[in-house]
Amino acid sequence: MKAFYPGSFDPPHLGHLDVIKRAAKVCDVLVVGVGGNPEKKPFLPAMTRCEILRAECGSLRNVEVVQYTGATVHWAKANGVQTLVRGLRSAADLDAEAPMASVHRANGFETLFLLCDPALAHVSSRIIRQVMAAGLSTEGLIPGRVHDAIRRWTAP
Amino acid sequence: MKAFYPGSFDPPHLGHLDVIKRAAKVCDVLVVGVGGNPEKKPFLPAMTRCEILRAECGSLRNVEVVQYTGATVHWAKANGVQTLVRGLRSAADLDAEAPMASVHRANGFETLFLLCDPALAHVSSRIIRQVMAAGLSTEGLIPGRVHDAIRRWTAP
Amino acid sequence: MKAFYPGSFDPPHLGHLDVIKRAAKVCDVLVVGVGGNPEKKPFLPAMTRCEILRAECGSLRNVEVVQYTGATVHWAKANGVQTLVRGLRSAADLDAEAPMASVHRANGFETLFLLCDPALAHVSSRIIRQVMAAGLSTEGLIPGRVHDAIRRWTAP
Amino acid sequence: MKAFYPGSFDPPHLGHLDVIKRAAKVCDVLVVGVGGNPEKKPFLPAMTRCEILRAECGSLRNVEVVQYTGATVHWAKANGVQTLVRGLRSAADLDAEAPMASVHRANGFETLFLLCDPALAHVSSRIIRQVMAAGLSTEGLIPGRVHDAIRRWTAP
Amino acid sequence: MKAFYPGSFDPPHLGHLDVIKRAAKVCDVLVVGVGGNPEKKPFLPAMTRCEILRAECGSLRNVEVVQYTGATVHWAKANGVQTLVRGLRSAADLDAEAPMASVHRANGFETLFLLCDPALAHVSSRIIRQVMAAGLSTEGLIPGRVHDAIRRWTAP
Amino acid sequence: MKAFYPGSFDPPHLGHLDVIKRAAKVCDVLVVGVGGNPEKKPFLPAMTRCEILRAECGSLRNVEVVQYTGATVHWAKANGVQTLVRGLRSAADLDAEAPMASVHRANGFETLFLLCDPALAHVSSRIIRQVMAAGLSTEGLIPGRVHDAIRRWTAP
Repeated sequence: MKAFYPGSFDPPHLGHLDVIKRAAKVCDVLVVGVGGNPEKKPFLPAMTRCEILRAECGSLRNVEVVQYTGATVHWAKANGVQTLVRGLRSAADLDAEAPMASVHRANGFETLFLLCDPALAHVSSRIIRQVMAAGLSTEGLIPGRVHDAIRRWTAP
Repeated sequence: MKAFYPGSFDPPHLGHLDVIKRAAKVCDVLVVGVGGNPEKKPFLPAMTRCEILRAECGSLRNVEVVQYTGATVHWAKANGVQTLVRGLRSAADLDAEAPMASVHRANGFETLFLLCDPALAHVSSRIIRQVMAAGLSTEGLIPGRVHDAIRRWTAP
Repeated sequence: MKAFYPGSFDPPHLGHLDVIKRAAKVCDVLVVGVGGNPEKKPFLPAMTRCEILRAECGSLRNVEVVQYTGATVHWAKANGVQTLVRGLRSAADLDAEAPMASVHRANGFETLFLLCDPALAHVSSRIIRQVMAAGLSTEGLIPGRVHDAIRRWTAP
Repeated sequence: MKAFYPGSFDPPHLGHLDVIKRAAKVCDVLVVGVGGNPEKKPFLPAMTRCEILRAECGSLRNVEVVQYTGATVHWAKANGVQTLVRGLRSAADLDAEAPMASVHRANGFETLFLLCDPALAHVSSRIIRQVMAAGLSTEGLIPGRVHDAIRRWTAP
Repeated sequence: MKAFYPGSFDPPHLGHLDVIKRAAKVCDVLVVGVGGNPEKKPFLPAMTRCEILRAECGSLRNVEVVQYTGATVHWAKANGVQTLVRGLRSAADLDAEAPMASVHRANGFETLFLLCDPALAHVSSRIIRQVMAAGLSTEGLIPGRVHDAIRRWTAP
Repeated sequence: MKAFYPGSFDPPHLGHLDVIKRAAKVCDVLVVGVGGNPEKKPFLPAMTRCEILRAECGSLRNVEVVQYTGATVHWAKANGVQTLVRGLRSAADLDAEAPMASVHRANGFETLFLLCDPALAHVSSRIIRQVMAAGLSTEGLIPGRVHDAIRRWTAP
């Protein structure tokens, strides 16, 4: 089974990497799709996000990282993928994910949800941005290379 | 990927069948495991639940139905399966499923969660038992053969 | 519109009375149905619960209190009522109520949910039983006559 | 009982129509109020939303559709309505609706909540806008005339 | 124990005052920190929010009100405080608070959560702003001096 | 401030110990109260639970462990404690805790909620009992001495 794990990954964090590693064990091929709202100024450039994910996933043979624009299922359809992967941190996450997952199901795309590692249940791209802005420790939240990239891109 | 979908299926309902059909498309082999608490009097005998599920899934080539006792992961380990499948009806369901899924993950078993068809989100074995007890219509809740089996087993 | 407000009311509390008073303003006739599981020993006898509710609702002209057994919708159908009333204390309450409300809807019965007074959102029959067992103050939780009835029935 | 069902209905969808049809059975008169934030650019013009709702509800004799601005309860007070109607898709919906419903209650306005048809629990105006933007199928989400109106108004 | 209760308090409401009074009984010193996003136009000026809180808390000997900018934990660290206080209105509130509380814990700051008075569970600064905009009664939501200050600052 | 952390601790687990250690930093004295339903057969005898907690908390100078029966607030009142401590694993936990916390507040007892370490959010006494029954690894769930005690008491 070939699966697509879409997200904005802005920035990528340890919760994303946990989902990728575990999904990669279940799928024959896992494509990580770096998307996001093109009209919104990103925190890190899409290319940087892709590079970080490629570097972090280098040892996972069946994982590819692609950049895409437009609707998730357009990419999926164009690339012959019918299975999506999403991580869940909490019940509130499921409430947010469920409507689009139901729409995707009605359009022929299945979503596999993986429950994140409890130790990372509080980690989101949004909280990383807040933690970095507050100058708090990012230990246990992001890999070192994400920390460096953020410092580089958000330096005045 | 070979996956195990454990449950008590007491009785099996359309929500279960929806999960089975969709999981079967994603997995190479899907084993439906009919378990349950052996110390609790079942609503339908385990053998009947297995027969119903086998009959309903007859057209799905890669689905097997087995009866098992004991812990879910014992069966999984003994049969070389490392991936579990569970359906989610709601955020409250995830709250109930998450602790054991985390324990399973820590013991090397991954759980794939499938969001159920919204039209079946209110359907559970428990509600079926209440609906049957109240003599309400089971249309859209269970297949005809489940209805017949319940009538047979719960007749005075 | 004639509506039916079913429950076990074991014991009746201020949250119930708040729902009754407000529903009575919306409905032409409101029938409060005192039911409950006949196989479970009640905290207060059904007749006592009915008497309390009748006394508390004495000034509400369009409210009737009846005792019933069996499925809620059997009573409703036999008495020409197609609208049910239920109170909601919290999101968790809705999760618990939703499946049966969906079944009722599919069988032709509509459920009107009223959000309880926030000041009473923590009040349930179960918490009343715990509060009475612990000898804590029931002020703001139950009317005086419920307190007296419980003392009478639970005295050793 | 005369009731007011306020919303932005931008765009109207099958979930709205389900609530309208069911509420119309319970109420003597149901007024559907097309409001929304006047400072936010709408997806469909308010007049178009009203026309669609009027056309869809044409067969419901006791349903009126009005456009209104300002606070919901101002309209209600000015038109002698004390009962509001709102649909609930999920527990998360109730969390979002509860504070204003409590404020309305304290100001003398009752809110009747109807649980939406489970098959439509994932349908919101927001998801319709995303589905249309993504070019996905809107079957089972919106009536044909909404689809046509959106195409007309969002065409470049 | 010295504790810090951070918030934007824009405007302060009875729910805030309830948390302050109760936290003040538990703590040796309670510092109420009026912060907020400096890039967002406030509803009331920070100085006004501080004045209101100081006036309302005048009788609480161990409560101080300070204005601060920047990350909450910067203020805490600079002032030798390791304990934070936050109010919880509902389960949804906890979902929103939990990620940052976990980050704070990992950085050496403990958060004490107090469940708000149920009668104030629907009260938030946001709902106050909506209630004032709609011209609804603020009785039971904000102290009189908050009402006056808002009228003064939002008058055209 | 002297606080009381009541629970059944059946068995004690790492989540409990995390709450105890963190609460002990905030309180002058923390009394851990081992209670539970006297009519229910415990998993571990109360005395064993006390011994385990005393041994695990030996290095915390301001922590005492007591066994108590009856209502939590009876013990608290008799021992001059007005502050209770409870851990929260999730939003669902808060839903379960909130009603009694509100009753306690109305009776003069404040409850301080501590959010548990995310890495332990899935750990409950109930899941420990299931994990032990299933023969799964308890690493990261309970201290070694709890494991040994359970083996001793549950051996056939």
